[in-house]
Amino acid sequence: MADIRTQGLQKPVDVAEYLFTRLHQIGIRSLHGLPGDFNLVALDYVPKVGIKWVGSVNELNAAYAADGYARAKGIGALVTTFGVGELSAMNGVAGAFSEHVPVVHIVGCPSTISQRNGMLLHHTLGNGDFHVFANMASQICCDVAKLTKPSEIADQIDHALRECWVRSRPVYLMLPTDMVTKKIEGARLDSPIDLSEPPNDPDREDYVVDVVLKYLHQAKNPIVLVDACAIRHRVLDEVHALIDKTKLPVYVAPMGKGAVDETHPCYGGVYAGSGSNADVAARVEASDLVLSIGALKSDFNTSGFSYRTSQMNTIDFHSTHCTVRYSEYPGVTMRGVLRKVTERVEVGKLSVQGSPTVRNEVKENYEGSETITQAWFWPRVGEFLKEGDVVVTETGTSNFGIWETRFPPKVNGITQIFWGSIGWSVGAAQGAALGVRDMGQDRRTVLFVGDGSFQLTVQEVSTMIRHGLKMTIFLIYNEGFTIERWIHGMDEAYNDIARWKYTEVPKAFGATDKQVKTWVIKTKVELEKLLKDEKFQNGEGLQLVELWMPKDDAPRALKVTAQISAKNNARLE
Amino acid sequence: MADIRTQGLQKPVDVAEYLFTRLHQIGIRSLHGLPGDFNLVALDYVPKVGIKWVGSVNELNAAYAADGYARAKGIGALVTTFGVGELSAMNGVAGAFSEHVPVVHIVGCPSTISQRNGMLLHHTLGNGDFHVFANMASQICCDVAKLTKPSEIADQIDHALRECWVRSRPVYLMLPTDMVTKKIEGARLDSPIDLSEPPNDPDREDYVVDVVLKYLHQAKNPIVLVDACAIRHRVLDEVHALIDKTKLPVYVAPMGKGAVDETHPCYGGVYAGSGSNADVAARVEASDLVLSIGALKSDFNTSGFSYRTSQMNTIDFHSTHCTVRYSEYPGVTMRGVLRKVTERVEVGKLSVQGSPTVRNEVKENYEGSETITQAWFWPRVGEFLKEGDVVVTETGTSNFGIWETRFPPKVNGITQIFWGSIGWSVGAAQGAALGVRDMGQDRRTVLFVGDGSFQLTVQEVSTMIRHGLKMTIFLIYNEGFTIERWIHGMDEAYNDIARWKYTEVPKAFGATDKQVKTWVIKTKVELEKLLKDEKFQNGEGLQLVELWMPKDDAPRALKVTAQISAKNNARLE
Ligand SMILES: Cc1ncc(C[n+]2csc(CCOP(=O)(O)OP(=O)(O)O)c2C)c(N)n1
Ligand SMILES: Cc1ncc(C[n+]2csc(CCOP(=O)(O)OP(=O)(O)O)c2C)c(N)n1
Ligand SMILES: [Mg+2]
Ligand SMILES: [Mg+2]
Repeated sequence: MADIRTQGLQKPVDVAEYLFTRLHQIGIRSLHGLPGDFNLVALDYVPKVGIKWVGSVNELNAAYAADGYARAKGIGALVTTFGVGELSAMNGVAGAFSEHVPVVHIVGCPSTISQRNGMLLHHTLGNGDFHVFANMASQICCDVAKLTKPSEIADQIDHALRECWVRSRPVYLMLPTDMVTKKIEGARLDSPIDLSEPPNDPDREDYVVDVVLKYLHQAKNPIVLVDACAIRHRVLDEVHALIDKTKLPVYVAPMGKGAVDETHPCYGGVYAGSGSNADVAARVEASDLVLSIGALKSDFNTSGFSYRTSQMNTIDFHSTHCTVRYSEYPGVTMRGVLRKVTERVEVGKLSVQGSPTVRNEVKENYEGSETITQAWFWPRVGEFLKEGDVVVTETGTSNFGIWETRFPPKVNGITQIFWGSIGWSVGAAQGAALGVRDMGQDRRTVLFVGDGSFQLTVQEVSTMIRHGLKMTIFLIYNEGFTIERWIHGMDEAYNDIARWKYTEVPKAFGATDKQVKTWVIKTKVELEKLLKDEKFQNGEGLQLVELWMPKDDAPRALKVTAQISAKNNARLE
Repeated sequence: MADIRTQGLQKPVDVAEYLFTRLHQIGIRSLHGLPGDFNLVALDYVPKVGIKWVGSVNELNAAYAADGYARAKGIGALVTTFGVGELSAMNGVAGAFSEHVPVVHIVGCPSTISQRNGMLLHHTLGNGDFHVFANMASQICCDVAKLTKPSEIADQIDHALRECWVRSRPVYLMLPTDMVTKKIEGARLDSPIDLSEPPNDPDREDYVVDVVLKYLHQAKNPIVLVDACAIRHRVLDEVHALIDKTKLPVYVAPMGKGAVDETHPCYGGVYAGSGSNADVAARVEASDLVLSIGALKSDFNTSGFSYRTSQMNTIDFHSTHCTVRYSEYPGVTMRGVLRKVTERVEVGKLSVQGSPTVRNEVKENYEGSETITQAWFWPRVGEFLKEGDVVVTETGTSNFGIWETRFPPKVNGITQIFWGSIGWSVGAAQGAALGVRDMGQDRRTVLFVGDGSFQLTVQEVSTMIRHGLKMTIFLIYNEGFTIERWIHGMDEAYNDIARWKYTEVPKAFGATDKQVKTWVIKTKVELEKLLKDEKFQNGEGLQLVELWMPKDDAPRALKVTAQISAKNNARLE
């Protein structure tokens, strides 16, 4: 006799199995999050579809980690429980929204029956409103799907995942306990979700390409400037094809760092207005045509809005539109335009100026002391890094210091300069390392994190240990919130933090001597020795370096940016 | 010459000074939170008004701690920074809303000028919307004040703080950087904010009192049942006056535990439907009149809605209304009614049945093994506790186990049974211990927390150490999420956690041997020895006990409740 629940279905499959199978299909192999009674039954399905449950230590870290995973592997996901779990993750998900990172947030919630009856369940506000958290989430997600009707669920899931990928933003799926085991059409799973971007209208696209080429062929000193959204909206192949063919000088904004092969002869360095090195600033600002790809001109990404380029000399390529000077082309997206520009550009017509040579200026920044200074350290890091490294930096001195580090090829540079939530990097590094491993790659993940930031999310170290991730952490021990000191309150107590014994943390979290190595490094000589140690260079498992740097020392670019920020905050009418 | 900013002001005072002075006036002596560039200048004012800056380790913990502080001292506050900080605190603030705890959340945000210009600042979503986080907060706060016009700010602050106190719910204050130093009228500070509850309309109140007395005098077996809102809306003196005069048997719901002196001859134990001890259930359910004070009948507070009392036999006293049987009296609040009922009740007319004797049944629960069982442990704890202790328990076995603990007098029992966010207790315990110290009291704070929950917010231990708080932590080491195991997935990997060396955590966070003592306790004998040790009983600083309990052991009430929860989650139509 036909089961009424499966009637009319070719290949009945449970909702949770459908959902997790889809996650697997789009590339998710590890799922972050925490159990809760509203998601427990769903979690039974995770291993069945070949996804590993990470078992995160808290939901904020889980969201940060899903974000990091997405930045390494393409897309990430987390599962939380209604109310308490999802709200804990909110800041992490908001960061993914702000920074254009595709993260799928699945929330196990009370059954549709309990919801309809307005039951006074745990994890509610006591007002019978089961939509309030989803409403909040709708502010920081590009799609919210409440999976309450079996006949609609497959469509909702496919749509949400597509939105997540194509728009490169988080989505929110609310999964009631009574829907988990409902049967839906599994035959759909035989065809993957269409994740392709909608192509541009060819006529409109051609029009934009013509305009771009006209200005490009005319320009005396054109350059390319690559920023965050080039990475997030996945046009790095197009960018490289363009520079390979045209040989145009290419610069990156801080949030675009890592987008371009920094050993490429065209690579000229980091441009961020007054925060840039003088030579870079001079060249970029002298350009009469900036091909700006994926710009996100936030304060910290532009050293406090200090660009000295003109919109009259700029062509902007975006994931939703292009802008040539002041002419806007909504709906004409960058990928198609970049491809055609590369295809059709007449190299002979281009006037190409050289790029500055970018080197790790270690010697130039050696000031004769034993102290590890910010100025010396970051170029020195450039010599330590290897092809293929994943480099994660944190809001604080490291996010600015890394501008002075020239990356080897194929480095994935991961930062959260726009959203700037401290503690993020520890979760993100864990997620990124896991993502790399899930891709079957044996790469190092190298995290640079401030002592202040580290304290917020320290338990993520436990997850690194639990999964045996290959991770090198440089913990910048400078007695507190140095970046804040430079903005306001150099000697104020609120910029101090507790003195932890950082190197004892991994063992407290259960790491054996085999799983973790730790160092306290106070001088340049000690650091040199460590960085040259082959074992350290190839270290398996967790390596934690407590790195002493002066409390009041900051990278040059940070000092500039901090001053502008302070002024902006203090500005009165 | 008159400064235009201070014209017409009798005693000009800066906005931040006004705000923090008001906090001080309503009882806040320690302020939780983290700095961020949008709140730094405001923080300069904190020490000036005699408030201590806690320097929290992350914002979620800060919110939990402000909640705990409020539960100990009356009201709590935290300061966070725009976006990243406030969203991290969201779950903690939502918990305070759900559980009726007065917490003031102050968010330092970009200047009104930046907001008006829609600047692409760090910590924004990139959409120029500076209201989105405040809008979210409005769902979990009873007042949202955006302090953008100096002429309105004093009113807004006074109103918000009054709402916070009177409604016993969180409020949200958005403080732009350019408002911090604006001058407002300081003369207002000479009169404290009116925090008194609006009195009931006397005629309506008298009417309700008469109805209550009619039923009370008629009843054959009246009892009092005290719940969460009696604590949160501060009617415990009224409750005690009532039972002292009437000698009525008094029971507490789990969320009301600690509301009533448990050594009082009228005290009969914890009632929670099928989760109750048989004798308590029988007596409560035999009552023909339940005076229910401050009820919050959520699933976990009623063992899965298993009350067997009838509304026809119930009078409900609330902070916003009273209900007699099915007659509702909106706007007639409990304080006035309870006072008059106590005043006017004719004791001679009452038919008072006895209460069961409540003892700590240690021997009865000794089953002959060396294992520390849940059944034996919680009554044993009752013998260890002292008058005046602050006892904090966590969602997990401890929240249910504590039902079997008879408290000494004046114990402040702190739980978050309704919202139930794990990790909360570690922050809340820190805040509570600080609150107690700020009241000049030398009381112990004793925290019972599961190993799973502890991991989420472990860094709060650092704050305990930093402030030298008197804190005894019993960490229930049972290899993971036992409460979840009893709901679903007894042996599933998602209910396992990493094995930490819990006793090494405080030292990693910088505690010296003088500041912390730790124990690993595996047997009843070891525990007996420890609990009898006078040094341990009076321990200063931090004491951390890793307490081994079986993975699959749970308090009886938890087993009952978990089963009902699992059924409810699985229920299909
Ligand atoms: C969640 C969150 N809380 C607060 C802030 C404000 N904030 C920005 S940077 C910073 C200090 C970072 O200090 P640290 O990590 O030690 O970096 P460094 O000393 O290298 O600058 C703080 C508190 C933030 N950005 N995010
Ligand atoms: C923030 C948050 N995440 C997840 C949950 C779901 N949850 C409720 S209890 C619990 C396990 C608690 O385990 P533990 O603290 O070890 O307690 P015990 O083993 O004593 O039951 C979990 C994961 C929650 N309530 N809150
Ligand atoms: Mg620091
Ligand atoms: Mg446990």
